[in-house]
Amino acid sequence: MQTDPTNVERVAVIGTGVIGSGWAAHFLRQGLDVMAFDPAAGAEARLRAFLEDVWPTMVRLGLKDGAAPERLTFAGSLAAAVAQAQFVQENAPEKAEIKMEVLAEIDRHAPAECVIASSTSGYPMTLLQQGCGRPERTVVGHPFNPPYVIPLVEVVGGEKTDPAVVEWAVAFYTHVGKYGLKMSREVPGFVANRVQEALWREALHMVNEGMATVAEIDAAVTYGPGLRWAIMGPLLTFHLAGGAGGMGHMLDHFDPGVFESWTKLKAPPITPELRQKLVEGCEREAGGRSIRQLEQERDACLIAIMEALGGCRPL
Amino acid sequence: MQTDPTNVERVAVIGTGVIGSGWAAHFLRQGLDVMAFDPAAGAEARLRAFLEDVWPTMVRLGLKDGAAPERLTFAGSLAAAVAQAQFVQENAPEKAEIKMEVLAEIDRHAPAECVIASSTSGYPMTLLQQGCGRPERTVVGHPFNPPYVIPLVEVVGGEKTDPAVVEWAVAFYTHVGKYGLKMSREVPGFVANRVQEALWREALHMVNEGMATVAEIDAAVTYGPGLRWAIMGPLLTFHLAGGAGGMGHMLDHFDPGVFESWTKLKAPPITPELRQKLVEGCEREAGGRSIRQLEQERDACLIAIMEALGGCRPL
Repeated sequence: MQTDPTNVERVAVIGTGVIGSGWAAHFLRQGLDVMAFDPAAGAEARLRAFLEDVWPTMVRLGLKDGAAPERLTFAGSLAAAVAQAQFVQENAPEKAEIKMEVLAEIDRHAPAECVIASSTSGYPMTLLQQGCGRPERTVVGHPFNPPYVIPLVEVVGGEKTDPAVVEWAVAFYTHVGKYGLKMSREVPGFVANRVQEALWREALHMVNEGMATVAEIDAAVTYGPGLRWAIMGPLLTFHLAGGAGGMGHMLDHFDPGVFESWTKLKAPPITPELRQKLVEGCEREAGGRSIRQLEQERDACLIAIMEALGGCRPL
Repeated sequence: MQTDPTNVERVAVIGTGVIGSGWAAHFLRQGLDVMAFDPAAGAEARLRAFLEDVWPTMVRLGLKDGAAPERLTFAGSLAAAVAQAQFVQENAPEKAEIKMEVLAEIDRHAPAECVIASSTSGYPMTLLQQGCGRPERTVVGHPFNPPYVIPLVEVVGGEKTDPAVVEWAVAFYTHVGKYGLKMSREVPGFVANRVQEALWREALHMVNEGMATVAEIDAAVTYGPGLRWAIMGPLLTFHLAGGAGGMGHMLDHFDPGVFESWTKLKAPPITPELRQKLVEGCEREAGGRSIRQLEQERDACLIAIMEALGGCRPL
C-alpha cells in the first residue's frame, strides 16, 4: 500500500544532472526531505552549487512550510538513497540500457510500497520496466525543462504498471505543485516533446534553405504565436480560427491549395473520423463557451502576458 | 515621397473580415483616422458591432491621444476609402486573383506617395503586385491573429518593391505599436505561420493515430513548452538545451537514434554549413550572455507569465 499521495514526506532523486537537480530543487521547495544520489565525480558539489544558485527563484515561487535546502541529503549509494523513500524520481542518462539497469537497482532497494517514476523523455515504460521485480509500481513522470518552474509532467504507465499507480502519481505530482497530465497512451517522445520537435525541425529547414535567420524565426515566434501558446494549445487555436463555426467550419474550409503547401511535413488526410475527433475534442475543451467567449478570455490572457513580459523582453 | 512614418494620420483598411476589423481597431486605438471599405452586404454594421465589442480591450491596452472609434469612416467605395490615405492595409479574401485585383484597384486610386500593404498569409508580393502600376510602393505586412493584440507583423517586399518602402513600413508599424519584423526573404506561408502549421500538423497526426486526445495535446503545450515560447523561440530554446556549450554542443551530441524518431517530419542533415548558421545565429541572439544568464532571465519571465496567468487559466 502506497503512502497517501498527499502525505509523502521522503523522496529520492536518482541522477542529479540538469533534470535531476531541477527535481531536487522543486521537491525541496515543496517541503519534502530529499535523498539524492549520482555516481559521477563531483556530483554532490555541483548539486549543492545549483541549489544555492536557484534557491532565490524557489523563494520567489513560494516555499511550502518547512521547506529548506538543508533537507537535502546526498547519499553514499543508490541503495542508501532509496531505502526509506516513499517516492523515487529517476533521472539517469537517456540511454535505454542505463535507465533499465538503474530502475532495476532502485526497484531492488526501495520499500515495496514506494512508487518509482522515470523522467525519461525517449523511452516507454513498457521497455524500461523489464528488469524490475515489481514493475507494477513503475511509471513515467516526464517533466519539462526547467522542472523547477514548468508545471507539466506527462504521466503514463507501461504494460505491467498498475493503473492505480498511474493515478497515484498524478495525484502526487498535483499535490506537489505540478500539472500531472495522465496520458492515454505511451507515445514515442511524449506529446510535449513531439510538438516541440516539430517546431524545431521546421525551423531547421528554414535556416537550412536560407528562408529566414535564427533571429527572424525566434522573433516571429515570441512576438507572434508564442504569445498564444502559453494560453491555448494548437488545436483550440484552430478552433478559434474557424470563426463562430469553430473547428468544424475550419476543417470544412481547409484550403489544400494554400494551407497544405507551407511546411515540410505532410498533413494526414482529414477523414470523417479525424474530423469528428477534432471537433468533439475542441467542443469538450470549450466546455460550452462560445468562440466569442473564448476570444475574450484569450485576449485578456494575452494582455496579462504582455504586461508581465514588459520587464523581460526580449530574451 | 511618402509621409514621414511617424506622421501618418489617415489610413485605409480594405476588407473588414476578422483580420481587417482587427487592423481597424488597432489603428483607431493608435489615434489615426481610419477609412474602411468592404463590398459585402452588412459589412459596415458588422465592423461597428465588432469595434463596440472590442473597444474596452483597446482601452485596457491604452489609447493614444485622440483615439476614438468615431474616427472610423465607412466609405461608399474602395476608391473613396483610399483617395486621401497615407497608408493602406489590404485584407481581401485569401485568393490570389482577388487580392491581385483589389491591390490593383487600390493602386489606381491611392495617392502616389501612399504605401500599400497586404495582410496576405499565403502569397508573395512578387505575385500579388503584378497588376499594379506602381508596384514599388506595395509590401506585405502580415499580421498575426488577433491583430489588435498580437504585436508581430512580418514585413517583406516583392521583386519590384522599393527597399526603402520596406524600411518605411517597418518604421510605420513600429511607430504604431507593432513589432515590425523585416524578413530577409519571401517565404511561402511566412515564418510564423509555418511554425504554427508544423505544430498543428504534428497534432493532427497524433490525434489521427490515437496517440493523444485534443485536450491532452493542448494541455501538454500550454502547461509545458507553450510557457517558454512566449519568451524564447525554438532555436534559442535549443541553445539552452545544450548546457553551457549551447547550440554547438547540442548539435554535436544530437542523438539520431532517440531524437530523430519522434515526429513525422524528417530533419535536414546537420551539415557543417547548417551547424555554423545555427551556432552563429544563437550567439548573435545571446549577445554575449552566457547560458546561465539566459536561464536566469528565462526563469524570471516564466514566473512573471505564470503569475500573470494565475487569473486566466485554463482556457
